[in-house]
Amino acid sequence: MMRINALAEVSPIDGGGNCRLALTDEDMHGRNLVVDWMRECGLEISVDAVGNIIGTWNVGAGAPVMSGSHIDTVRTGGRFDGCYGVLAALEVIQTCQQAGITPPRPLAVGVFTDEEGARFAPDMLGSLVYVGGMPLEEALDVIAIDGAKLGDELVRIGYAGVTPCPGPIPHAFVELHIEQGPMLEANGVRIGAVTSVQGISWQEVTIVGQSNHAGTTPMSLRHDPALVAAEITVFVRQLAKEMGGDQVCTVGKIDLHPNLTNVVAAKATITLDVRNTDDVLLNQAEAKIAEFLQVVASAENVQITTRKLVRFEPVKFDERVIDCIEEIAKQQGNTVQRMPSGAGHDAQMLARVCPSGMIFVPSVKGISHNAAEFTETVDLIAGANILLHTMLSLTTLEPTSELTN
Amino acid sequence: MMRINALAEVSPIDGGGNCRLALTDEDMHGRNLVVDWMRECGLEISVDAVGNIIGTWNVGAGAPVMSGSHIDTVRTGGRFDGCYGVLAALEVIQTCQQAGITPPRPLAVGVFTDEEGARFAPDMLGSLVYVGGMPLEEALDVIAIDGAKLGDELVRIGYAGVTPCPGPIPHAFVELHIEQGPMLEANGVRIGAVTSVQGISWQEVTIVGQSNHAGTTPMSLRHDPALVAAEITVFVRQLAKEMGGDQVCTVGKIDLHPNLTNVVAAKATITLDVRNTDDVLLNQAEAKIAEFLQVVASAENVQITTRKLVRFEPVKFDERVIDCIEEIAKQQGNTVQRMPSGAGHDAQMLARVCPSGMIFVPSVKGISHNAAEFTETVDLIAGANILLHTMLSLTTLEPTSELTN
Repeated sequence: MMRINALAEVSPIDGGGNCRLALTDEDMHGRNLVVDWMRECGLEISVDAVGNIIGTWNVGAGAPVMSGSHIDTVRTGGRFDGCYGVLAALEVIQTCQQAGITPPRPLAVGVFTDEEGARFAPDMLGSLVYVGGMPLEEALDVIAIDGAKLGDELVRIGYAGVTPCPGPIPHAFVELHIEQGPMLEANGVRIGAVTSVQGISWQEVTIVGQSNHAGTTPMSLRHDPALVAAEITVFVRQLAKEMGGDQVCTVGKIDLHPNLTNVVAAKATITLDVRNTDDVLLNQAEAKIAEFLQVVASAENVQITTRKLVRFEPVKFDERVIDCIEEIAKQQGNTVQRMPSGAGHDAQMLARVCPSGMIFVPSVKGISHNAAEFTETVDLIAGANILLHTMLSLTTLEPTSELTN
Repeated sequence: MMRINALAEVSPIDGGGNCRLALTDEDMHGRNLVVDWMRECGLEISVDAVGNIIGTWNVGAGAPVMSGSHIDTVRTGGRFDGCYGVLAALEVIQTCQQAGITPPRPLAVGVFTDEEGARFAPDMLGSLVYVGGMPLEEALDVIAIDGAKLGDELVRIGYAGVTPCPGPIPHAFVELHIEQGPMLEANGVRIGAVTSVQGISWQEVTIVGQSNHAGTTPMSLRHDPALVAAEITVFVRQLAKEMGGDQVCTVGKIDLHPNLTNVVAAKATITLDVRNTDDVLLNQAEAKIAEFLQVVASAENVQITTRKLVRFEPVKFDERVIDCIEEIAKQQGNTVQRMPSGAGHDAQMLARVCPSGMIFVPSVKGISHNAAEFTETVDLIAGANILLHTMLSLTTLEPTSELTN
């Protein structure tokens, strides 16, 4: 808890949150602090070519059981998202060291680069490169929303490491994270044993119309990109409502040009964030949106182009890891439920290469990506204890040749 | 025409337009150029306390017949909007001088500050202060979209003049302007004798909801300002369509915060531009919008506040000035139609204090507030000739005690 608060003192924003966009000076200060703490625990520290930091407690033999998450935030981030998972994993190792527990294989803590995707797309970039899902060269060439190049920014903040990507495959991976949603609190349950992660589809939609004078252009002669952007925004809400289940659709970003009161816009650019745990349904949602874009473009006589930003299929976690988390949570006297994750997490990338799972603790009012993000200390402690026992238990997990992802 | 092109060389943008926001360095350079030309014509130049420039050809006796407009532009402005009216009025005086015509009273050219309102609200600010519709002190305190204070910017660019506001009342006022709409071209008519100006209602609508994670927040628990902004945008389009006539409604500006792909917005700010030539109908439109804001705020459980930016009642021009313009246009062999103006113009402010009117020439494709704004040279010349004869004719207009505005 003290470390969470100390890390939150790096790049604070009004209301108790953080603005620590990936590979900014703020991120560098946060990384330096975490690396110092890793050193204090005697961990062997490696930084790879995409800036992922892995701290390993080299005991026993074989591949490590790894935990970890990220410390970058969105522009209006809270203090728990990501940081909790990193610092709890560090706490697990320190607790074992202090209690004289020597696990049969190494334990490791991973801090993955640019999980949020708020500065460099796609999100979960660092863990994606770690598991070989994106070539290093491509990642280093990604351009930030502020125009900077990812590779240059890594060098600038001193985190262009020498360890090659993809990284060494862990024996197993488990990530502890706040839920970032309202379900655990609503159900009065302390622990979520995460079964899957929603598939994510991000696209940018650019609408080009005809800029004109807002007073003199009759409604019937307009080709207004702002109206079309609005119609799409209303449509995706209706679509999510009609589809039901865990389908969610969000327009969180709208940019008009020239964005003036008395000028019919020339251009609108919006983003669509569409998620579902079922890839068939996610594909259906995408198809219905594509169909609507054609209809609305034709009705207003504007040009619409789309650009895929992110497309991740839904991920299912390893049944043995889920069982292990559920069992340990119960043993320690917690209420627990199996649940999907609505957010993307580094664990879904690790699930491509090793048995993986996630532990959720409640978010008060489900608030996240917001300075008001909060989790009760009692829940933070319960989560960290379950992480401890899960990591130790996973050290003896039988290797499998077939992965369930 | 040469002066229009020369002025357009000040602060050019791609595609042949101009970005000359009021009281910027670009505006200063444009003003300096026009003042030089006024000097070359031997005009007596006064700059008033709000930066309006009046160049007067002091012949005859009594109050001048004034023409004029503005040279500030929107961010993506064309080269004719405003500038054409200023430079044609200068041409009228020069033509009289060269032809040895001495009118019985002075002729004057006005260049009014901040007509567009693109940097300082409200629009037509300079002419509004000129006629006493806004106290000088209030105008000087207006803060720009970039944070600068109007009074400070006047001093900075050297146009905080000593002539008091309100300014001297002209004998009559006539403004020559491009239509900025598609009607003259669509009807195959060269000249518009403007009968009225649409009433304008600008308001800023701020919607505060609950920022949250776009993946983990079920649709049913959202309070999404971006959705509400979109619903309002769609509603005002439908409202304008249902009301018909010359009712227009525009959302040209949308700002989301934090404006990120994977974050349900915390706040949306949009502007509504609503216009009608009939004040009763304009009031009805405003009332229907206010009603809808309540409905939608309650449905999504968000807070909506509104701020009035601009509210001008529709203006009717002087019948004698309209008749004069129509008559002269016909005499010179032009097709002419009476028509309302969809845009606001400085002439509507002058109409509060003296007999006023406007002459429109066609805008190709109705495009304005855009680099592609264009009017054929033959139309520009026809308009300037009608302005010449109208100004001369208005020198002998009988004074009225009762103004029709």
